[in-house]
Amino acid sequence: MVGAGQLARMTHQAAIGLGQSLRVLAAAADDGAALVAADVMVGDYRSLADLRRFAAACDVVTFDHEHVPLEHIRALADDGVSVAPGPTAILYAQDKLAMRGRLSELGVPCPGWRELGRLDELSGPIVIKAARGGYDGKGVWFVSDRRQIDALAATGTPLYAEEQVAIARELAAVVARSPFGQGAAWPVVQTVQRDGICVEVIAPAPDLPPDRAEQVQHLALRLASELGVVGVLAVELFETMDGRILVNELAMRPHNSAHWTIEGARTSQFEQHLRAVLDYPLGATTATAPTVVMANILAGPDDVVPKSLDERVHHCMARWPDVKIHLYGKGFRPGRKVGHVTALGHDLASVRQRARQAARLLSHGDRTLGGPA
Amino acid sequence: MVGAGQLARMTHQAAIGLGQSLRVLAAAADDGAALVAADVMVGDYRSLADLRRFAAACDVVTFDHEHVPLEHIRALADDGVSVAPGPTAILYAQDKLAMRGRLSELGVPCPGWRELGRLDELSGPIVIKAARGGYDGKGVWFVSDRRQIDALAATGTPLYAEEQVAIARELAAVVARSPFGQGAAWPVVQTVQRDGICVEVIAPAPDLPPDRAEQVQHLALRLASELGVVGVLAVELFETMDGRILVNELAMRPHNSAHWTIEGARTSQFEQHLRAVLDYPLGATTATAPTVVMANILAGPDDVVPKSLDERVHHCMARWPDVKIHLYGKGFRPGRKVGHVTALGHDLASVRQRARQAARLLSHGDRTLGGPA
Repeated sequence: MVGAGQLARMTHQAAIGLGQSLRVLAAAADDGAALVAADVMVGDYRSLADLRRFAAACDVVTFDHEHVPLEHIRALADDGVSVAPGPTAILYAQDKLAMRGRLSELGVPCPGWRELGRLDELSGPIVIKAARGGYDGKGVWFVSDRRQIDALAATGTPLYAEEQVAIARELAAVVARSPFGQGAAWPVVQTVQRDGICVEVIAPAPDLPPDRAEQVQHLALRLASELGVVGVLAVELFETMDGRILVNELAMRPHNSAHWTIEGARTSQFEQHLRAVLDYPLGATTATAPTVVMANILAGPDDVVPKSLDERVHHCMARWPDVKIHLYGKGFRPGRKVGHVTALGHDLASVRQRARQAARLLSHGDRTLGGPA
Repeated sequence: MVGAGQLARMTHQAAIGLGQSLRVLAAAADDGAALVAADVMVGDYRSLADLRRFAAACDVVTFDHEHVPLEHIRALADDGVSVAPGPTAILYAQDKLAMRGRLSELGVPCPGWRELGRLDELSGPIVIKAARGGYDGKGVWFVSDRRQIDALAATGTPLYAEEQVAIARELAAVVARSPFGQGAAWPVVQTVQRDGICVEVIAPAPDLPPDRAEQVQHLALRLASELGVVGVLAVELFETMDGRILVNELAMRPHNSAHWTIEGARTSQFEQHLRAVLDYPLGATTATAPTVVMANILAGPDDVVPKSLDERVHHCMARWPDVKIHLYGKGFRPGRKVGHVTALGHDLASVRQRARQAARLLSHGDRTLGGPA
């Protein structure tokens, strides 16, 4: 796996069960996965030489992020390396403009969008997006003034424009596809963002009618097939105030919106991604509990972290013996995703409260133990 | 963790979630855990110098087997190393004669036993057991002839004798205890042995009345407390034909009889062992499904392994998408435990059949796919 962040770290956990050991290409020796994996190469994912050296010891090469230059992925594939997902698919996870174009060809519902030269064909308020490199709310600008847009464009970042949609909530449909073409979909989830960063995922998405959920799963499976994805495909969606479901973004790797599957589904997204890229049959995606909530642990501001992480873990475990903690081995920098927690059960309100409170405690060293939510 | 077999391998998986990385003392670089852990020292667990060098980089030292010389464990503790379980507890996992003596003092029901010099005080058929080093049916002799016993004793192995009990079935009560004294018990399970080797574990033990199960859990928790165990304690039990429950053996580490907890309980024995030895609060031990069956994958005879492991995994996944596979990264030698599978569900008969068939397929390359059980 190219990249050694938390996605690679959790993929290594799954690999161990399958009798495998994940080889990771880490940017630094203290990357989350590099701290726990046996087979680590420290190198630069932007260097074709490093990628080739890395790939030489791999059965299959896969990715924990979208930032490997596409021409390098093509070069590896041309070398005969088994790359999953392959370059023709991964283009649509790397380049949002290409993705929008392809999705429109396929008739998939998306927000209205145009290249910057045809802005006037859009109606209502717009949002400017970077075609590449955006994540966690980065690469998105709510500007409509032509001069501001020109200033953004002058930086050389490839941009495009989308109509702003009145969003009721965000959903995600996560599926996997094997080289053989087998597909498997987890229940559709609701994702909750704060400042453009995912803070919470609720599985299944509350009050989503079953036929609607099934349509969305089919859409995601169809996209995986049409784009030739191998591995996990996460389809981020907007549910609009007027009841439409539109595709926002695609990711072709394990994704934050499916961390809940580690405990909440019979097969986790990490195991499933490995099954897919290793060309094994896919695992069952059934949920293990009626309601599962995942909450991200976002490191709090430095000045309100009164307890050590170890103390906070201690308090969290003492208070919620059934909440599962996942820490990524990262240093705490304010706002950084340093882990997540998962709670499971029958009653959404109580499951959600446990997950939120546990994540907040681990983030902030919350002093309100025993207090109200 | 001293030892780098499958128990350390699965403990490392759990450690990753807790933001930790397991340091292992491996006998060889290709031991199961050494293949997947980042922090591996190859050394000899019988060498105090190696143990000291290993311990110097650990917060806490724990074990994946009982074979570390007790005097070395004492020496580490005397050095000020945090050792869990400590030497005063681990004695009773290493030395069955000491264990029998202590359990009798505590009034715990055991098979009748005597040292070899007082054999005549036992009634009925007896079994000779090695006080140390026995496992998986090794170190047990069904001999009653005095000359045969003398011949065994002449080898220098410390021995003792037990009355043979008419066993209806075997059970196991697995608990954990923290240094603070917190205890947690998983549901009591039935273990199924073949040729002295555990082949299957059923959780919870079928038809065990709830009050009886609770008594057994309390016994195991009491033993953990009386013996000062820190970490997981597995109490292997005989249920006799006349309805008594007797203690057979103790293990103070993650144990085969609780592998089912990885998917089958809210907190796995591997996470719980880490929580205990790291002095964290213990996790919830509630089951995640009404019935869970774990079946060991025992490598079949060489001459009936017609498919590669990879092919067998492929077939197993295709046939049982919901069965969870755990492979230990070991070479297949006939009879060796090379992995396990876990199936979960509502109906014991069907869950058990899935687990058995999957394990058999992975063991033998069974050609009867689609055929009867």
